[in-house]
Amino acid sequence: MPDVLISEVGPRDGLQSVPRTMPTRDKLAWIDALHASGLREIEVCSFVPAKLLPQMADAAEVVAHALTLPGLIVMALVPNLRGAQAAIAAGVHKITIPASASEAHSLANVRKTREAMVEEVRQIVKYRNDVAPHVKIECGMSTAFGCTIQGEVKEDDVIWIANEMAEAGVDESGLSDTTGMANPAQVRRLFTRLHSEIGDRMGAAHMHNTRGLGLANCLAAYDAGVRTFDSSLAGLGGCPYAPGASGNVVTEDLVFMFEAMGVRTGVDLDVLIAARAPLMAGLPGEPLYGMLPEAGLPKGWRS
Amino acid sequence: MPDVLISEVGPRDGLQSVPRTMPTRDKLAWIDALHASGLREIEVCSFVPAKLLPQMADAAEVVAHALTLPGLIVMALVPNLRGAQAAIAAGVHKITIPASASEAHSLANVRKTREAMVEEVRQIVKYRNDVAPHVKIECGMSTAFGCTIQGEVKEDDVIWIANEMAEAGVDESGLSDTTGMANPAQVRRLFTRLHSEIGDRMGAAHMHNTRGLGLANCLAAYDAGVRTFDSSLAGLGGCPYAPGASGNVVTEDLVFMFEAMGVRTGVDLDVLIAARAPLMAGLPGEPLYGMLPEAGLPKGWRS
Repeated sequence: MPDVLISEVGPRDGLQSVPRTMPTRDKLAWIDALHASGLREIEVCSFVPAKLLPQMADAAEVVAHALTLPGLIVMALVPNLRGAQAAIAAGVHKITIPASASEAHSLANVRKTREAMVEEVRQIVKYRNDVAPHVKIECGMSTAFGCTIQGEVKEDDVIWIANEMAEAGVDESGLSDTTGMANPAQVRRLFTRLHSEIGDRMGAAHMHNTRGLGLANCLAAYDAGVRTFDSSLAGLGGCPYAPGASGNVVTEDLVFMFEAMGVRTGVDLDVLIAARAPLMAGLPGEPLYGMLPEAGLPKGWRS
Repeated sequence: MPDVLISEVGPRDGLQSVPRTMPTRDKLAWIDALHASGLREIEVCSFVPAKLLPQMADAAEVVAHALTLPGLIVMALVPNLRGAQAAIAAGVHKITIPASASEAHSLANVRKTREAMVEEVRQIVKYRNDVAPHVKIECGMSTAFGCTIQGEVKEDDVIWIANEMAEAGVDESGLSDTTGMANPAQVRRLFTRLHSEIGDRMGAAHMHNTRGLGLANCLAAYDAGVRTFDSSLAGLGGCPYAPGASGNVVTEDLVFMFEAMGVRTGVDLDVLIAARAPLMAGLPGEPLYGMLPEAGLPKGWRS
């Protein structure tokens, strides 16, 4: 068993941020390559209206393929009940719902107040309980560390919404540095507080590398007890509704950090780096990030 | 008083790695700009034969200028007694001596065994004690976390040489990730052990960002009690004798991490970012690194 779960978000968070649409066959080949590296949770798509996000129009087909991959937790993002119904109909194992800790970002991202979003999640949980009780529900608290629209986000607000989500019946609540404003001291403080509030319902750290602190923040989250980490192959993606923000943590560099520390991820780094090829094939010319793929593994690296 | 000392190594470590020579007047303007940001220790040059490193031929002139800047600790790298004599004659406040924990790297970098290097340092300390007892001597343990030539470096070897240096009378001994092979668990372990051996003679963490872990490793070193950090504006430089290695930690990103955490550096980030202009003026077309300068300070950043 791995010590941490690396949750790959590239096929959803990454592809959603790119204006071009990756052809379905390329998506499937890329997801196959990600799975082959040992990744065991992939956010494969989002269920949103195709007119809003044509990149995700093939969501049901992508889920159907991903479900054939052994041992993989197939996850999809949904912004509302309608999306959750479609995701559950498609057969996902887990749905993830974004909920902003910042009121300004909540209105910009999902056109709902935070209270309205909590209510939406209650309805999703009720639907899940009625028709598909085995499906897990994760909530990712966007802008938990700061907001490009409203600036500071109060830690009490983050904890308030996390508690609301736990009460609503969400299985895991994580914290997202949507805007690349987090620092390691804040990450340790807020995840420690989150853990003291909701215990083992604490979910993923979703960090961005906007200002170079992505891995340091993941380290801080690990220190605070987090064991699930979102990242994106080649750093693809970010949040298009947070102006000026960009840059998911690079999966290759994150896996390297943990493996070098002796924290097992279950991921083979050589096979992971090879998964950049199908990404490049599906999105020719897209810039790929990552320090490890440039430098290579250190001399003497254990295989 | 700042909580940590950021020791800027760009004018030595950075410029030494660039084949072109920055004109002296540009160096002085750049050092002025670095000082203006609040940096209070700068490695301004190395004292080595000009035929080996023509980039450093103006070392004495650079030191003379740097000594006019109020409150600045003027530091120079020296590889041997001859260099130390020249540095002390020029009036530096502090000399830093590289000593490899890896025998293979020691031979490649200074053409001496590790034992011969310890003996050289003994002679430097004796000379300093005789003629300039106010000058501080720092030793930076190269390849402390791994070597691109010999691979693994034993932690016992690192501690052995640190103890030798302390016995020789060196004021501060730090650890350098010359080859970009360090990971945060190793950094915490080795600095913690170093501190238990030599106490407040523990010196700087000199981390590289070769595989993206530079800031995470600085955070780990901070956790282990390190309070001096080497870095380079725009990430200029690396070690030319460690094949495949590159990339000093970026001063702008490092200062941002600490300041965001509430750890005071004494450095003004806007003025620091402005110091990239004289660097660019002196080395037109040289690639500059750094995430913060690209993304800018977060909304609501305190001035």
